Amino acid sequence: MDQSITFTEKDQLKAKPESVQLGFGKYFTDYMFEMDYSLEKGWHDPRIAPYAPVALDPAAMIFHYGQEVFEGLKAYRAKDGRILLFRPEKNMKRMNQSCARLNIPKIDGKFVIKAIKKLVAIEKDWVPTEPGQSLYIRPFIIGTEPFLGVHPSGSYKLLVICSPVGSYFGRNTKPVKIYVEDEFVRAVKGGVGFAKTSGNYAASLRAQTKAEELGFDQVLWLDGVEHKYIEEVGSMNIFFKVDGEVWTPELDGSILPGITRDSVLELLKKWGVPVKEKKISVKKLFKKAEKQKLEEVFGTGTAAVISPVGFLKWEDRVVKVANGETGKLSKKLYETLTGIQNGTIKDDMGWTQEVVAASTSDAAAEPAGTPDVVSEAAVTE
Amino acid sequence: MDQSITFTEKDQLKAKPESVQLGFGKYFTDYMFEMDYSLEKGWHDPRIAPYAPVALDPAAMIFHYGQEVFEGLKAYRAKDGRILLFRPEKNMKRMNQSCARLNIPKIDGKFVIKAIKKLVAIEKDWVPTEPGQSLYIRPFIIGTEPFLGVHPSGSYKLLVICSPVGSYFGRNTKPVKIYVEDEFVRAVKGGVGFAKTSGNYAASLRAQTKAEELGFDQVLWLDGVEHKYIEEVGSMNIFFKVDGEVWTPELDGSILPGITRDSVLELLKKWGVPVKEKKISVKKLFKKAEKQKLEEVFGTGTAAVISPVGFLKWEDRVVKVANGETGKLSKKLYETLTGIQNGTIKDDMGWTQEVVAASTSDAAAEPAGTPDVVSEAAVTE
Repeated sequence: MDQSITFTEKDQLKAKPESVQLGFGKYFTDYMFEMDYSLEKGWHDPRIAPYAPVALDPAAMIFHYGQEVFEGLKAYRAKDGRILLFRPEKNMKRMNQSCARLNIPKIDGKFVIKAIKKLVAIEKDWVPTEPGQSLYIRPFIIGTEPFLGVHPSGSYKLLVICSPVGSYFGRNTKPVKIYVEDEFVRAVKGGVGFAKTSGNYAASLRAQTKAEELGFDQVLWLDGVEHKYIEEVGSMNIFFKVDGEVWTPELDGSILPGITRDSVLELLKKWGVPVKEKKISVKKLFKKAEKQKLEEVFGTGTAAVISPVGFLKWEDRVVKVANGETGKLSKKLYETLTGIQNGTIKDDMGWTQEVVAASTSDAAAEPAGTPDVVSEAAVTE
Repeated sequence: MDQSITFTEKDQLKAKPESVQLGFGKYFTDYMFEMDYSLEKGWHDPRIAPYAPVALDPAAMIFHYGQEVFEGLKAYRAKDGRILLFRPEKNMKRMNQSCARLNIPKIDGKFVIKAIKKLVAIEKDWVPTEPGQSLYIRPFIIGTEPFLGVHPSGSYKLLVICSPVGSYFGRNTKPVKIYVEDEFVRAVKGGVGFAKTSGNYAASLRAQTKAEELGFDQVLWLDGVEHKYIEEVGSMNIFFKVDGEVWTPELDGSILPGITRDSVLELLKKWGVPVKEKKISVKKLFKKAEKQKLEEVFGTGTAAVISPVGFLKWEDRVVKVANGETGKLSKKLYETLTGIQNGTIKDDMGWTQEVVAASTSDAAAEPAGTPDVVSEAAVTE
């Protein structure tokens, strides 16, 4: 895609929230990126404009048949003032996999990364400076055609909005409590579980509410066929350290292929920690736990990065993991990942991309060298 | 809910399309009904206003986590000028079942029926007069809170829009061709298959596109667990007449509880036709077909009413049903249902509700006796 991105500037910028108020996904920046798709023009009219309501025909596809995909990534501020993105090409690749499942036309990942970099550079003063905080970036595509037949939309809108965020689970960094859901099902093979699409999250809300009512933070989903195998946590992938070995459910079509999940797998392999992607039976896992072999449990995701799990409940069985504290490996993974993300640890994995260079707090909106940063291969691999 | 519905009138009404142009869900009337929900006020501010774009914050729940439910019903014009609704209390009951699954606050079904009647009465000139045509009514609720945490929305919008429609499958009334999908899955027990929510339809688009590419009209879904049992057709429930007996898949949590499905079951029982709601194995069904025992197949739904199926394909096996024609029972059901709906057959089932009385083409917008037409029991059964 070879189009220039227009920029409409606002007269008056918003007041920024105090860093202690941030929470997750409550505040939004001054601008958003937007582009449209039509059958005639393809993706067109890429623009950065003031953050504003989206006006859609009430018959628009998104309101009825949910044709939608989204992504989540973050911009991190390094101590030297640099702003970094973490593996954005992975988000673009996954977004296109989601698009394929949802019958949404593909995007040019390279171009959208360019747009995101331009947007983040404009919004650089919104990237928080406190440790553990970042600018959450949410690209999403919605079907907009006003038509009530059950058919793929003929028109779409891609938007990117940004929100300065603190910790996903609040300021409390205590390990989370997780509940194995045995009534509701999130996804099944042949369905849309591997895609980042709104319907998966809509389907999860009732179980999430139930978990909270029972005093838990998140739901641990079992497979939809046999209700035996562990799939993922509400908004994260899940890992178990069992007797020195790390296990995570294999990607079988009903699990989200998490980018933090992939990064954890790569780090563990690099460190020589034995790791297996496999079917994990909840029964077997609880047996290991009862024999004191379950050493650590942690969730992984862009929002929470590494989220240690301190308690697991399944039916009437409750397991306290790592004495309810953060395990050693969880801590090392969290520190390594966030260190790479915010530039305090040297990125020898090649995972970060610079949006704003060091000591350029007054730099122009256009980041240096943006169009060439991401190779075609990286985006379409 | 005891609130009055305000009405904002337009200066200039739209030109109405020719009846031959109608199709399905392409044209929308002059007005829509709208009301809002907040945690503080509950459902409030019910209003009928000109049909217009809905402006939502780009972080609104509907764009990210798909918290949505919808319904579909029709207003039919009788020869004597009356306008009738068909079992609207069933739609309200199902909408509340969908709301419960999707963590959306319940609606007062009686009040929403009152609103629909008021809207249809205002739009009475949009109710088509040609046989087989009607005014399709689409109530839907969307989560509107601008927040990116995966949590139920704190605010919602309910809208009702109307579209004059012809036949769902075009002017061609030939039996449809159906393809048994064995790769993609629509829903699974414990999921949201029984709810009328956008994510189910989003998940179906790719298989629907595949079916069309293969020359079929719709997909016949198998269960998500064993891929053995028949569930429903793309946008309809499904019935089979086998050796004098009528079968339809039982409602087990992954199938939409169709109102036309329910009406067909009631009519068949009244007529003394043997009917079974049960698990139907696709293998067994094709065996019956190969022994010439599969006499008729038809889909049921509000959009298509009764849609005869002429061809069924599963793996490499193709079955021609009723010689590719409309079967006798399918025809009788279609004529009876549409007869009751448009008032040419006496409604001794108590299924229709009058919106506009006979020969009142100049009647006021407020339909006679609306608030008392639906009993509380009927709505909350």
